[in-house]
Amino acid sequence: MIPYSELDRTALETELSAVTEAYEAVKAKGLKLDMSRGKPGKEQLDLSNDMLKILPDREDCLDGALDVCNYGNLCGIPSARQYFAELLDVKPSEVIVGGSASLQLMYNLIATAFSHGLLKSPAPWSKRGKVRFLCPSPGYDRHFRVTEFFGMELIPIAMTPEGPDMDAVLQWIKDPSVLGIWCVPKYSNPDGIIYSNRVIHMLASMKPAAPDFAIMWDNAYCIHEFDGAYVPFPDILKICAEYGNADMVYEFASTSKVTFPGAGISCMCASEANIAYFTKTLGVQIISFDKVNQLRHVRFLKDKPTTLALMQRHAAILKPRFDAVCDALDREIVPRGIGRYTRPKGGYFVSLYAMPQTAKRALALVREAGVTMTPAGATYPYGQDPFDSNIRIAPSLPPVEELEQAIGILCLCLRIAALEQLLRGNVN
Amino acid sequence: MIPYSELDRTALETELSAVTEAYEAVKAKGLKLDMSRGKPGKEQLDLSNDMLKILPDREDCLDGALDVCNYGNLCGIPSARQYFAELLDVKPSEVIVGGSASLQLMYNLIATAFSHGLLKSPAPWSKRGKVRFLCPSPGYDRHFRVTEFFGMELIPIAMTPEGPDMDAVLQWIKDPSVLGIWCVPKYSNPDGIIYSNRVIHMLASMKPAAPDFAIMWDNAYCIHEFDGAYVPFPDILKICAEYGNADMVYEFASTSKVTFPGAGISCMCASEANIAYFTKTLGVQIISFDKVNQLRHVRFLKDKPTTLALMQRHAAILKPRFDAVCDALDREIVPRGIGRYTRPKGGYFVSLYAMPQTAKRALALVREAGVTMTPAGATYPYGQDPFDSNIRIAPSLPPVEELEQAIGILCLCLRIAALEQLLRGNVN
Repeated sequence: MIPYSELDRTALETELSAVTEAYEAVKAKGLKLDMSRGKPGKEQLDLSNDMLKILPDREDCLDGALDVCNYGNLCGIPSARQYFAELLDVKPSEVIVGGSASLQLMYNLIATAFSHGLLKSPAPWSKRGKVRFLCPSPGYDRHFRVTEFFGMELIPIAMTPEGPDMDAVLQWIKDPSVLGIWCVPKYSNPDGIIYSNRVIHMLASMKPAAPDFAIMWDNAYCIHEFDGAYVPFPDILKICAEYGNADMVYEFASTSKVTFPGAGISCMCASEANIAYFTKTLGVQIISFDKVNQLRHVRFLKDKPTTLALMQRHAAILKPRFDAVCDALDREIVPRGIGRYTRPKGGYFVSLYAMPQTAKRALALVREAGVTMTPAGATYPYGQDPFDSNIRIAPSLPPVEELEQAIGILCLCLRIAALEQLLRGNVN
Repeated sequence: MIPYSELDRTALETELSAVTEAYEAVKAKGLKLDMSRGKPGKEQLDLSNDMLKILPDREDCLDGALDVCNYGNLCGIPSARQYFAELLDVKPSEVIVGGSASLQLMYNLIATAFSHGLLKSPAPWSKRGKVRFLCPSPGYDRHFRVTEFFGMELIPIAMTPEGPDMDAVLQWIKDPSVLGIWCVPKYSNPDGIIYSNRVIHMLASMKPAAPDFAIMWDNAYCIHEFDGAYVPFPDILKICAEYGNADMVYEFASTSKVTFPGAGISCMCASEANIAYFTKTLGVQIISFDKVNQLRHVRFLKDKPTTLALMQRHAAILKPRFDAVCDALDREIVPRGIGRYTRPKGGYFVSLYAMPQTAKRALALVREAGVTMTPAGATYPYGQDPFDSNIRIAPSLPPVEELEQAIGILCLCLRIAALEQLLRGNVN
């Protein structure tokens, strides 16, 4: 297959007219397909069916001597703290188990930093003048939105194959107005990158100018391999502590993509000093999170080996979907030289870098053909991709057949957008 | 029985020595009893046993066509919005169904007002200089703490038998720094007062100087009669709207004392304009609350008549406990002229006004004898009861026999504190 960049004008025009004809044909079918969000599919949710009946009676609702149906235990029931501690290789005393959304715990941390400050804050963030936050990009739009909501300036940091560009990070943290960084360290959203040990140690050993700099360590995909065995990952709390930075990091995880996205349990892990601080501030807003659901999860997921076995069943459902996407890209996009990506082994996304200046146009065409996808730019702060290139593909929700249709349409649209761009002579 | 105030010094001393002897005898027993919080007892929790098994399979997890196990539906599942709408006589479109804690929804509202402002705010509350909040007292300590946490000045407002002292309220709202009021309008915490129609209409028709004044209408005990039939209560949203104040009120409720305190569902009701505003701000922090638990509740509680029938079963458990407390007070305290209270017909508390300047001393003695109670002053802003008189008694948790022991000890301590006070000659 000849790369598009090597085609002459006539060949480009011929190709464009052929691809457009194919596109119009699928558009006429009036499809309605969704690849927009990292939403598990029905088959995956069915894997946790038995959790629904695991606490059938009040007499089952005991965690040791604790009646989980009543008020109390703000930090979570002991067995759930133990469960997440094992999963993330931290101490139970370093865990607060929350409600159904780790995002809510992250938001709460930033909101509390804003109104009251963190453990080591000289003043609340709202009183610190300009506040900046580092955003490795492409990244998770909902992370960026939390810090944007509080008026912080979002600083894009380039992603490398081993994590955020640490030269840029180390430069920025000299600025005392830079108060934190968003990280998805394992199977990063959307690139699927696992931070290297070098990057992890550079992050953990940072000496930022701000005494209350916060590493927001969203370990959302900590056990989410869909291709191959579980990949062990170091405990960031311990490493930070070794560098004298015990209070600099806040780790988050949840069972949203283990059991039910709408009804899982979440956690925040941090130094015991930070846990004590947040127990105090959380105590103002809630008496306890849903402890019945915590116990339901512990009884169903039991421990790390049992959970990893469940994740392999998720993997069996997810891998064919990711293969469908990646195989189509390998067949239709990569050889034409109009996009590149790295085949992920875990997480929920394929991160495609389309030919620069074509992502928006391609996704507009995709939308017209009835396929919902994450909007172009969404993976960058303020929704602004400087290259108009990155496209986040979320293959988990649709059945494989629908997915093949949807990715087929995406490929057509990417080709049209690339051909138009080449014909405009802006790139070639 | 002769009121203590009519005893002479010798009689007071004789009585004190007799009561102290009785107190020392119970203290020696080394009891451990808890009347501190409005925590339902085990028998009450058992009433919702069948809710635990009401969604045993994935195929049951549908609300209409909606799979409640997946992401989505920030405002709650349709049937849960409908459920709370019926309960509170509002429209489903005026309801956001939250997680396990209405306190979290209230905190979130105040926190959002602080950082971003409310729908009609000229500026965030954090940028408004001094902010004041009206606190009808005695009231709920957790309410007061939320506004205190954000640095607001808490203004105590006296409670009358028909609600907050409206003369004081109407005076205060002329001040543009006064941005809201906490209300528990039915079976108020702790007095058990039901706001009169006159007070409700005066509140709903207020024209505060602050354009974003917020009535925090915590209808925590909306269906919580334990003595007699359900008492209908007007819809505050409609009344506010009639006075042109549709956006001034936020109503809260939960099933914490209907099903499980640790694992119920909660709601915020407000004008559709307010719901739209909060949907936007909540969307930054959460994708959806636990919709499986919402459906579990709707399937179990069904509708208002079914829920009211369940509340009658709670009532059958609660009434003997309240009777034990009130009968003891009627026997030991009221005739001695050292305390007054109004026998409540709903809610979770008995609010005793002990002889002024004796509450702290009495509760210190109570604690020494192994009984945990809400600390004196807790029902007032900053924990400061100007008369050192109000004592909140929470009879729901202990079994009746334990409760009788505990209230017996409280009565002894109240008598000791009153006798000591009279002997100091400060009151008599």
